[in-house]
Amino acid sequence: MKCVRCRAKPEVHLRAHNAAFCRSCYLEYFRRQVERAVRRQRMLAPSDRVLVAVSGGKDSLALWDILVRLGYEADGLYLGLGIGEYSDRSGDAARAFAAQRGWTLLEVDLRDTYGFDVPGGAQAIRRVPCSACGMSKRHVFNDAARSNGYDVLATGHNLDDEAAVLLGNVLRWETGYLGRQHPVLPEAEGFVRKVKPLVRLSERELAAYCVLTGIDYIVEECPMAAGNRHLGYKELLNGIEERSPGTKAAFLFGFLERGHERFAGDAVEEREDLHPCPECGSPTPGDVCGFCRLRARATRSIPVEAIGAQVPEATP
Amino acid sequence: MKCVRCRAKPEVHLRAHNAAFCRSCYLEYFRRQVERAVRRQRMLAPSDRVLVAVSGGKDSLALWDILVRLGYEADGLYLGLGIGEYSDRSGDAARAFAAQRGWTLLEVDLRDTYGFDVPGGAQAIRRVPCSACGMSKRHVFNDAARSNGYDVLATGHNLDDEAAVLLGNVLRWETGYLGRQHPVLPEAEGFVRKVKPLVRLSERELAAYCVLTGIDYIVEECPMAAGNRHLGYKELLNGIEERSPGTKAAFLFGFLERGHERFAGDAVEEREDLHPCPECGSPTPGDVCGFCRLRARATRSIPVEAIGAQVPEATP
Repeated sequence: MKCVRCRAKPEVHLRAHNAAFCRSCYLEYFRRQVERAVRRQRMLAPSDRVLVAVSGGKDSLALWDILVRLGYEADGLYLGLGIGEYSDRSGDAARAFAAQRGWTLLEVDLRDTYGFDVPGGAQAIRRVPCSACGMSKRHVFNDAARSNGYDVLATGHNLDDEAAVLLGNVLRWETGYLGRQHPVLPEAEGFVRKVKPLVRLSERELAAYCVLTGIDYIVEECPMAAGNRHLGYKELLNGIEERSPGTKAAFLFGFLERGHERFAGDAVEEREDLHPCPECGSPTPGDVCGFCRLRARATRSIPVEAIGAQVPEATP
Repeated sequence: MKCVRCRAKPEVHLRAHNAAFCRSCYLEYFRRQVERAVRRQRMLAPSDRVLVAVSGGKDSLALWDILVRLGYEADGLYLGLGIGEYSDRSGDAARAFAAQRGWTLLEVDLRDTYGFDVPGGAQAIRRVPCSACGMSKRHVFNDAARSNGYDVLATGHNLDDEAAVLLGNVLRWETGYLGRQHPVLPEAEGFVRKVKPLVRLSERELAAYCVLTGIDYIVEECPMAAGNRHLGYKELLNGIEERSPGTKAAFLFGFLERGHERFAGDAVEEREDLHPCPECGSPTPGDVCGFCRLRARATRSIPVEAIGAQVPEATP
């Protein structure tokens, strides 16, 4: 097979599209996929100030890179999760990427700012680490974007991620989550807009982009995620994709075209029940928000000497 | 673990229910699951004449057995598909089951009555055998039930079947199929009611019922189905079920409770577009119905000497 656009020798083969591309045509294809996602879903306006959540992995670095290439004013945000050497190396990758380009990278460290880390938080609430991690990211990303005057938070969720989340939501028919699963969540009281511009691109396509553009990312996956449900769903979808290329895209985009709307009402209902958390002001359906409860539990259970003097003892 | 009902030594362990049963309590549990499905979905009235589609496998024989035990007037229908020795053996199993009990078994042979068999039909329309088989069963089952005065057609689809079909429909967001996927399809112009009373029971539970009640079924799976998509989805769900027992039931019943209704309108629209097939009178969205097109193609492509003199040459 030759490059489907210019007939040159191909460097990237895409089974789901039954296509192959040379280097420059691949980069053009990639760029167009992001442009299309942004345009079709009205993710970004040219004047938007965008904050990109950056982990040091291929998805988030590619996202930051392509958004700047497309002309957006985009800064990065790195959240230190305190997951041992994995966090050290991912922070280094994010910082090196930003420094090489002279781009602005905001940094928040969960332990320095909130007094706990993901492993400690998970232990304190007796949930899997991914649960404490997701809760922390949602809170800190939104909070950092709002308090620094950004219009939009962009995350590097790709096609594989979104399809796996969708599978999990569908297997349990989580109607509220299905109503909320969309590449754009519009701004609302207490929430900045959230967008996922990489939703049309697979994990392999992201890796190819980084390799071809020389983006130096951390290949290592988070050690705490090993064996989690989400990765199980990814594997499962990879198995189906292997047999029927294009299944993942048909699953996700079929949902967005013909499924999502039917569940949107459930998410609106949930959102209408929100009010400000008395601790931090973030919208929450309960009394104190999930993140503040996590933080309160985690900062009680970690010995004070281990986290230094920054963190006051939480009152019971 | 002891029998959860009577504390006796258990014979059947059900991981999805985190339960175990002795023989008699298992049979009681099984009966109640069928009763519950029939009652909750209003599948059958006491006076209904029921036709059970019987393949000779565990599901359909168990279904016939339990419906008679529950007091319904239920006869069997065996459709000869012409799939070599597999069909011979499945026919034998169905006939032996009926004869032992003195129950009425109607028989239709695809080749004798319609002039083709499943392998020939599939070849003629260049589709997988399961496609020709499904088309034939849908047509013949409905036709046999109507022309013999039955109120309802009952099929042995179990939880594993339905969950696998649901997964396939959801992966492609086939909204019409999702709207039609229900354990009861009400009677309509040209259609008898169709019910699936085993929808709460897994493949393993069906096998256990047959073993405990001495039902002699054909264990062999259809050789033409090997490697098909549906079996792939079943395997896949078995993999998830292994890790999270109860997933299949949550998936299917979550859909029926919180998903199906949202797609029902799509099925109604499809049904409203139906009109009688000019060849056979069955409802069809197109001109000639799928089954008559299959039959026309198949009876043209099979050499006349191979099917004897019963079948007139189809006019082009």
